[in-house]
This record gives sequence, structure tokens and C-alpha cells, in this order.
Amino acid sequence: MPVVGMVGGGQLARMTAQAAIGLGTRFRVLAGAPSESAAQVTDDVMIGSHLSLPDVAAFAAGCDVVTFDHEHVPDSVLSALESSGVLVRPGSGALRYTQDKLAMRERLTSLGVPCPRYAPVSAVADVEAFSGGTWPVVLKAVSGGYDGKGVWVCSSPASVADVLGHGIALLAEEFVPFRRELAALVARSPSGQGAAYPVVQTVQVDGICREVIAPAPGLDPGVAASASALGLRIAAALGVTGLLAVELFETPAGGLLVNELAMRPHNSGHWTIEGARTSQFEQHLRAVLDLPLGSCAPSGACTVMANLLGGTDPDIYDRYIHVMAADPAVKVHYYGKEVRPGRKIGHVTIVADAGEDVAAVRDRARRAASYLRWGTEDGD
Amino acid sequence: MPVVGMVGGGQLARMTAQAAIGLGTRFRVLAGAPSESAAQVTDDVMIGSHLSLPDVAAFAAGCDVVTFDHEHVPDSVLSALESSGVLVRPGSGALRYTQDKLAMRERLTSLGVPCPRYAPVSAVADVEAFSGGTWPVVLKAVSGGYDGKGVWVCSSPASVADVLGHGIALLAEEFVPFRRELAALVARSPSGQGAAYPVVQTVQVDGICREVIAPAPGLDPGVAASASALGLRIAAALGVTGLLAVELFETPAGGLLVNELAMRPHNSGHWTIEGARTSQFEQHLRAVLDLPLGSCAPSGACTVMANLLGGTDPDIYDRYIHVMAADPAVKVHYYGKEVRPGRKIGHVTIVADAGEDVAAVRDRARRAASYLRWGTEDGD
Repeated sequence: MPVVGMVGGGQLARMTAQAAIGLGTRFRVLAGAPSESAAQVTDDVMIGSHLSLPDVAAFAAGCDVVTFDHEHVPDSVLSALESSGVLVRPGSGALRYTQDKLAMRERLTSLGVPCPRYAPVSAVADVEAFSGGTWPVVLKAVSGGYDGKGVWVCSSPASVADVLGHGIALLAEEFVPFRRELAALVARSPSGQGAAYPVVQTVQVDGICREVIAPAPGLDPGVAASASALGLRIAAALGVTGLLAVELFETPAGGLLVNELAMRPHNSGHWTIEGARTSQFEQHLRAVLDLPLGSCAPSGACTVMANLLGGTDPDIYDRYIHVMAADPAVKVHYYGKEVRPGRKIGHVTIVADAGEDVAAVRDRARRAASYLRWGTEDGD
Repeated sequence: MPVVGMVGGGQLARMTAQAAIGLGTRFRVLAGAPSESAAQVTDDVMIGSHLSLPDVAAFAAGCDVVTFDHEHVPDSVLSALESSGVLVRPGSGALRYTQDKLAMRERLTSLGVPCPRYAPVSAVADVEAFSGGTWPVVLKAVSGGYDGKGVWVCSSPASVADVLGHGIALLAEEFVPFRRELAALVARSPSGQGAAYPVVQTVQVDGICREVIAPAPGLDPGVAASASALGLRIAAALGVTGLLAVELFETPAGGLLVNELAMRPHNSGHWTIEGARTSQFEQHLRAVLDLPLGSCAPSGACTVMANLLGGTDPDIYDRYIHVMAADPAVKVHYYGKEVRPGRKIGHVTIVADAGEDVAAVRDRARRAASYLRWGTEDGD
């Protein structure tokens, strides 16, 4: 059996480990510490730094293919691995578009992919010129952001000056008054096979994904097909191997704009564990191993995933009893991470019963996540 | 998070480990060797013997509850653990009925549970008296059998003499000309909550389960309800905590007779990983932890599981490509065990598409299992 190595020990690696056990492929994790989410449950863990070429190279030496649970491995490390003959999937040529948002915007624009209007900026005057007097303007760190970090919505030149004070490379983008956020999750294998999951709606609060509804309720079938086609087109054009998540804005007029890209299992795809024939984690393994891709067909009419954020009580297990008794069909996923307020520590998934409407499923998921977080069903 | 310890390192422990990762509970395995199926993928493994009280006691010392992937831990070891205060689930009082088939028959009969006619035997004359001239007669080892081992169908006094020559305690049972075999899988928690999965049909070849169809096609709803009620009643009467699988014969007249009992995740329940809201592995963990039990509702109209037996080529992975390309919705589970002819090394599961009939789903599952075993779709 081949050995898949995943750099990064977070929950994405943890859930990929579960999928690897089923497929029977061997799975190694490069984690920063034994306490990390995936390192707790994987038998084959190397402790080291994803920033260190010697560490990553030593890790890769035992692997048939190397992949990632995040996009923070430096391009210099990726390129050195590739030069030494390691199979890196996705490769550095694709990953750079998740590490450099300016390069991503330029590449997508060159492909004719609709994006928010953008410009690199380095001074308040640049942003004022970009805004043309229309505020707010979105500033984004060119590299290193996640979960709302590295994104600022600025309503005035003064707040722009504050952000510029961080001294990092920035991009300005138009503020899109979107109707809602969608995500198109696709997979692409080295052989060029593509597969697309149903397009989902994501609900973000303070830049953090709180809820995913699959498929996106009431989405025009033509728009859904366009979103999937866009995902597959971007994956092919950028040479992605593995998963590609395309975060999208649905505009008030019903159009689509690409917000962000991720080339790994993605929070918007956790619903697939129970809600699709092939989970995104198995799909990512199949793709990086160049196995035929699995069916993305949904297993129910509707599936809702709600993220579980940390509350103030660290003992989440005490609350399992209530949640499981209240809803015997809720699926609780806990990542083994220390509970800290606002941190993603798990998620819950509900697959709709036959005939159940979306609002009822969302309500069940929200109540379970709220109770696990706060000990009350209407905490958030 | 509580620590669940499972004695035994086979595929049942391996699949329970996957479920434990999802729930976030900690999971320890007592395996006989690092090469065992569960030991390959679990981070917390102790190597030792399930027959040794010092080994099992040392293992249990790190666990909040101890459970089992097989029924071969001696009663003396179980009783000693319980006396020292270890939570053993199921307990020795229940497990003895899986270790001693004569005790099981006597207990079930005292409960009024329909069983094949039986008698303990120790000489050819005993068996001849039992048969009353009607052959064949089934002889069973009172303890230690599994997968058809320890079961002999004898058509003459001469073949009885051969079996008696093994020098083990034996039970004679009437040969039941059953219509088909069924299995009722239920769970019971220490608090007394019960839950029952849909009753399935099992197809055995040479005493080994080859195929499970969930739910059992065309089963009379009244008979299905009786089977589930029987499972729940036996679980309660025997004080089972965890899963109880009741293997049943459906007689030509449509009645039910209990064949065997197992108190652990069971081959007849592997279909629940994809085919039910709660997998049997998660359910077993919930039951032994005394958490509320999960929904047993099926996730599709029909699910078929086919066991994957070893063929002559050890390199099963080479055949993944064909199977996955031929049927993108097939779920392949490989246990990491060395391939030996006839050995259970994995299984495949297919959840029916909407409107798909049972025969078509069975055909898909059989073709996938056959190809993985033999490299051809009609090998067995």
C-alpha cells in the first residue's frame, strides 16, 4: 500500500487519517507537536516544522506522495522537494495561487474568471484612488491569512492607515454586497479526471465559517452548473491535483465572483463525510494517489454542517449526553483540540430525513452546535 | 475525553478506531502483534496477550471502560478485572453466553426464545439417539468456534466419530433447512436504552459471511419486528452492554430460530458505516460509554455489503484502479491484513441509488469484491 504524507497536523489531517484507514492506504503526518489534532490519533507521526526544508524532506523520504492540510509550506521548500523527485500534490505551481492572493487575482483575471475588482496597494493614497470615494474597501494580506485573519473592511482612510501600519503586503478589493456566499468543491487527479460536489451555501460570522448547507437552497440550476464548471476549469488551468475549494460570492443580480481558493480538504466540504457517497477526505486521497475519483452524489436531499466553536467550558464531553439524547441522528465530530473561545474545535452534521425541509435541518444543527458550545440550545 | 480500551487488534477494532476519531474519545487497543489490523492505524497500542491477566489488567489500568473485538478473553480474566473495579462492557455475565454455546442454548430456551433442538453429546451413541435416525445432524464446539470453524454437518455416525476424535466438548443441533439467514443487530446501554438496526439478510458460503443485504429483501414486516424485538429482549435479559448481533434462521414456514450470538461489532453490521445514520462502531462506543444511542435509521433504501476474501495475488491495491473506475460509488474497505486465500481482508459497500433494485446493487457489490479478489468480475 502506498504511503500518503500530509504536512500539517490539524483537523483536516485528522479526518483524512480516518479516510485512509478505510482505504487501507498508509498515512503519515508531519505535525508541529504531539498534541495537534491529527497527531493524537495517527500512528505514524513525525514532529517537525513545515517551514524547515530538512524536516519536510526527511518526512517526504518515507512517503510515496506528499500533500497538505494547509497552505503555509514555503514555495522554496516545495520547489526543493519537487527538484529532488518527491511527488508533491498539489504542486508548487498550483499552491502559489493560495499563498499569494495577488498572483491568484492576476491569474484568474487572465483566465477570464470573474473576481472582485482589485489592486495592489501600499499607501493610503493608493486605496483612496482605488475606492474612488466609495467605501468600504476591503484590504487583504497578500499572504498568510485564514478564517477572517488578514482581511479588513475599511470604511475610511484612517482605518486604512491602521492596517498599513502592520507593514505587510496588501491588496485592495471592492466590497461586494453579496446576496450570500457559495462554495464549489471539486477534485482533479494527475490524470486529469475531474469531479464536482454539489455547490453549497456557506454562512460566515466574523470571517469564520459557521454553517454549510448542501446543496445551496434555491440556487438556480444554471448558476450551480456554472459554479461547478468554474471550479473544474480553474483546477485544470492551475494544474491542481487533489481538492480545490472555490469560495464564491453570489451577487444580488445572481452572478458569481471568486472570493478565495483552497487546495485541500475544506471546511465547506465537511458535510460530505455523511452527506455524499465519497467524503472529501477520501476524494483528496484518491486524487493525490491518481486513483479514479469517487462519486460526489449526495446521500440525502439536504445536509447541514454547523461548526462547533469553543465556548468558555473546556469539558465538551459532558454535553454529549444532552445533544445525543435530544437528536439521535446528529453526528458529532470533535477534533481533540483544546477548547479556546471562538476556536474551531469540531462540527456537527445532520442529513435531512425524507421530506424534511432545510429550515428544520438547519435548526437541528444549530441547536446541537450551540448546546455543545454553551450548554444551551439558543446560545448563538 | 474518556479512554475506551478494546481487547483485540482485528478489523473490528480498526473500524471502531475510525469511529472513535470522529467522536473524539480516546481509544486504546490490546493487540497480539504490531502487524495486526487495528494496531497498524491506532496511536495507542499495547502489545500483549488477551489470555494473560497481567497483560489485560495492565491494559485496563489506562482505560475508563474495556470492551472487545472478539469473545476469546477467558472468563477468569474478565471476572478478575471486574472484581478489581474495571468497567467491563459487555460484562462477564453476558459474555459467557458467547463463549459457551451450551449455556447460551439453555439460557435462551429458559427465556422461551426459539432455538434449534439441541443436546450436549460426548459419544456417537448420544448423537444417534439425538438424531433419531434423521440425518444430517449439526455438531458444534461448545466454545472457540468462529467463521464456520467449530461447526460440522454430519451425515453419518462415521463422520460423527471423526468429529468426536477432536476431543473437544460438543453440542448436537438439528439441521435446520432454512429459507435464508437473517441477522438482528441491536445495541443496549448500561442505562438500559435499546436501539435496533433494520434486520438484514446474510449470505454465507462454507460458513463464512459473503454478503449482507440491508434490509432483508421482502421480509414480512411482522417477522422483521419480531426479530428486532427478540434481539432487544435477549440483550436486556442477558444484561448486554454494547452491541448484540443475533444470527437467525428464517424457516421455510417463516418462523425464526436463533443460530448464534455475538456481543461486539459484527460482520452483519459493516453496511451501517455508509448505510445507516449511526455506524455500528460508533454505536458500540456510545453504548459502552453509556451515551445515548444513535439513530439506526437507514440512509438509503437498500445497502449491500460484500466481504472481500483473499485470493492468490497479494497486491490488492493494484486492482483499486479498475474497481473505482468501474463504479465510482463503491466504498472499498481494506483491513491492512496480509492477503491469504479465503481470509477476510476487507469489504465493499454499495448504497442503492434512488429507485435502484436490490439485484442491481448486489450485482455491483459482487463484481467489485470479485475483481478485488481475483482480478475478474465473475471470479466467485
